[in-house]
Amino acid sequence: MRVGIGILGFGTVGGALLHKLVNEGSSVSTKTGLEIDVVRVAVRDLDKTRSVSLPADVLTEDPMEVVNHPDVQLVVEIMGGEDPAGDLVAAALRAGKPVVTANKALISSRGKELIALAEKSGVPLLFEAAVAGGIPIIRPLSETLAGEQIDRVLGIVNGTTNYILTKMAEEGAEYKAALAEAQELGYAEADPTADVSGADAAAKAAILASLAFGTWVAGDRVYTEGIERIDATDLRIAGELGYVIKLLAVAENSEAGINVRVHPTFVPADHPLAVIRGATNAVFVEGPSFDQLLFAGPGAGGAPTATAVLGDVVDAARELLAGAQVAPPIRFQPGRVLDFESASTTWYLRLEVVDRPGVLAQVAGVFGDNEVSIKSVWQEGEDDGATLLLVTHAHNEGRQRATAQALRSLDVVNNVAAVIRVEGAGPTPNL
Amino acid sequence: MRVGIGILGFGTVGGALLHKLVNEGSSVSTKTGLEIDVVRVAVRDLDKTRSVSLPADVLTEDPMEVVNHPDVQLVVEIMGGEDPAGDLVAAALRAGKPVVTANKALISSRGKELIALAEKSGVPLLFEAAVAGGIPIIRPLSETLAGEQIDRVLGIVNGTTNYILTKMAEEGAEYKAALAEAQELGYAEADPTADVSGADAAAKAAILASLAFGTWVAGDRVYTEGIERIDATDLRIAGELGYVIKLLAVAENSEAGINVRVHPTFVPADHPLAVIRGATNAVFVEGPSFDQLLFAGPGAGGAPTATAVLGDVVDAARELLAGAQVAPPIRFQPGRVLDFESASTTWYLRLEVVDRPGVLAQVAGVFGDNEVSIKSVWQEGEDDGATLLLVTHAHNEGRQRATAQALRSLDVVNNVAAVIRVEGAGPTPNL
Repeated sequence: MRVGIGILGFGTVGGALLHKLVNEGSSVSTKTGLEIDVVRVAVRDLDKTRSVSLPADVLTEDPMEVVNHPDVQLVVEIMGGEDPAGDLVAAALRAGKPVVTANKALISSRGKELIALAEKSGVPLLFEAAVAGGIPIIRPLSETLAGEQIDRVLGIVNGTTNYILTKMAEEGAEYKAALAEAQELGYAEADPTADVSGADAAAKAAILASLAFGTWVAGDRVYTEGIERIDATDLRIAGELGYVIKLLAVAENSEAGINVRVHPTFVPADHPLAVIRGATNAVFVEGPSFDQLLFAGPGAGGAPTATAVLGDVVDAARELLAGAQVAPPIRFQPGRVLDFESASTTWYLRLEVVDRPGVLAQVAGVFGDNEVSIKSVWQEGEDDGATLLLVTHAHNEGRQRATAQALRSLDVVNNVAAVIRVEGAGPTPNL
Repeated sequence: MRVGIGILGFGTVGGALLHKLVNEGSSVSTKTGLEIDVVRVAVRDLDKTRSVSLPADVLTEDPMEVVNHPDVQLVVEIMGGEDPAGDLVAAALRAGKPVVTANKALISSRGKELIALAEKSGVPLLFEAAVAGGIPIIRPLSETLAGEQIDRVLGIVNGTTNYILTKMAEEGAEYKAALAEAQELGYAEADPTADVSGADAAAKAAILASLAFGTWVAGDRVYTEGIERIDATDLRIAGELGYVIKLLAVAENSEAGINVRVHPTFVPADHPLAVIRGATNAVFVEGPSFDQLLFAGPGAGGAPTATAVLGDVVDAARELLAGAQVAPPIRFQPGRVLDFESASTTWYLRLEVVDRPGVLAQVAGVFGDNEVSIKSVWQEGEDDGATLLLVTHAHNEGRQRATAQALRSLDVVNNVAAVIRVEGAGPTPNL
């Protein structure tokens, strides 16, 4: 069975995918019975030297030529960015061509509209590669678990930040040094903002939540906090308490509604996500029937992402060649998406306070006034002034924030130096 | 969209599935848009009290009535065993009805024939629940990774044996005590043979290998060794060396051919499979493009297995309602399946030897004669006689066995007390 495909983009993922399809095409064909014929590839610069050699007429600088070519039966979008990728994907779907994309930004912002368009056109829109690179997570969530109640998804879905946090934790490196090393090794881009700000993870969190809960969650509804302000001090303290700090994507579904967020988090050292080191990604799914599932693997990189793209291409081609209009496994329903303020969170706080008697009473008073109960509090260091470390019980995030705000205006508090949310019941130090 | 299904079997998995479909059917319907109507359920005993109440005419003691009922569009086989399950599945497929099964014994013995029959009939035969219960591994292997080169699959795919080994390692329990506790807690059956002998894991290993490599491997081609002879001594020694002992399913694919086996294995403590404790299952997949993927979760139990069955039902129903004959993702090719003797293995041996000078020279001489090189050797204990522990370099399994045989006939060796294969380069003790 032969299928003609068009590819939008020839970067790292495109190079890896074309290597598979052109240089190793026969093994793909042997295993799947599919001959995947690369009809057109849209590139930015025709003159650039490429790692995979293609016939001259296959490359084009006009992406619409790829979408519209009569022999292109299926479009792979791996150019990234929302524009013009979104309009190209929409045009392909409207022309009745299945689309495979690795574009998390596009799916998290326009996924609802594009999925509806795909359904209307009766063709699949697949995006396994958009979340956690080479880890098969989209298909398990949206097919195997389609009929299941899912309560919570926790993920380490950004390799750059996990690499930086692992470095900081294991070598005591400061944020800037760890980031510089990540950039040198190619784990972080020259402009690392999308990764370190949490924006990349937030787009993926929105997609995971949408599939897990069957209610579309737009990317801009995700509370997002990055790792830029994480201090080596807090990583050290976390380690002493039997915790690690991870940038977690958290998606929760309860009677009250759906809450999705990305923030640095204290994770107990015996949690399956705590051992995910370096640039590895992992997704942890919880539900009443299956308890806990863990998926781990390479979260980025050309070859792993191309693996996910190729799996979708094979899947879409099978449906296409069957002449089938197979309904999508999940039918998105309206649902209530909560603001983070109404979610329940446990906080770790590091306060720089003046070193004199009565300070703890004043600080504790502020927590009491805001009806936030303290699980444990202890003092550390003996420098100028003193440092108070606190872990609260679980409370409404809004009330936690009000407490932090009130602490900032307290005379005896010089600085609320760190606020990090805690997964689980929270540590109790051995004092 | 409505689909009528028939279920063969109403045991633990059937009860959990029917609970989902009958008691929680509306949530399945909301998320997937499918109304799954349970038309007929075949049971062994009509008079038995059931946890889910169904209309009286739904239950029948005649499984062929389920298969042949005109309103049954899709058949779920969860009765287990090869007979009569195999003939019922074949009859359903021949009648053009998609089949979902959780039956690893059936798929590992007759999978090739049944998959060919399904393809001929143009309907899917799905078996996500046959391997590793609630962990989505069949679909990722056979769809997401369909076009990929996979070199190796390692799995902990039997919860009973993993529970027993975990107990023995963590509490120093002997095999019989750990087994008795597993039976009391319901992790092991009254007759635990299928689990502790490795037969259950071997059936799953055969299925994983077939999907990973695209060549059908029959269950009886899997070398199988159980945990019955594992001694608490070896678990203790493994721990001291920074290893754990796991019953691993190992499927390897190389230029020479495919090798599939199940045996107790020394696994380095920092390997992702080493931390899989208790009844949890995990599958670890290696390939050049995606490096390493880990899937972990509940390997057995009614609810998790029912989750996997339901995912397949939703998938098969979508294809069925589309009127599609979607080709299976993998086309099995002939391939060479090697005997275990020709695979490369690293051995750990525990020898009881007489305690006198010159013994080590004689033992080492036997290894030398068989061209097996010793990585490390050390003595333990000071009881009657002495204990020699050895770890070899990687060699042909046949040669390793010849060495063990020659050791047994050596005067100075009282007993080859333990032989356990080693994953990775093998431990070096700190002497």
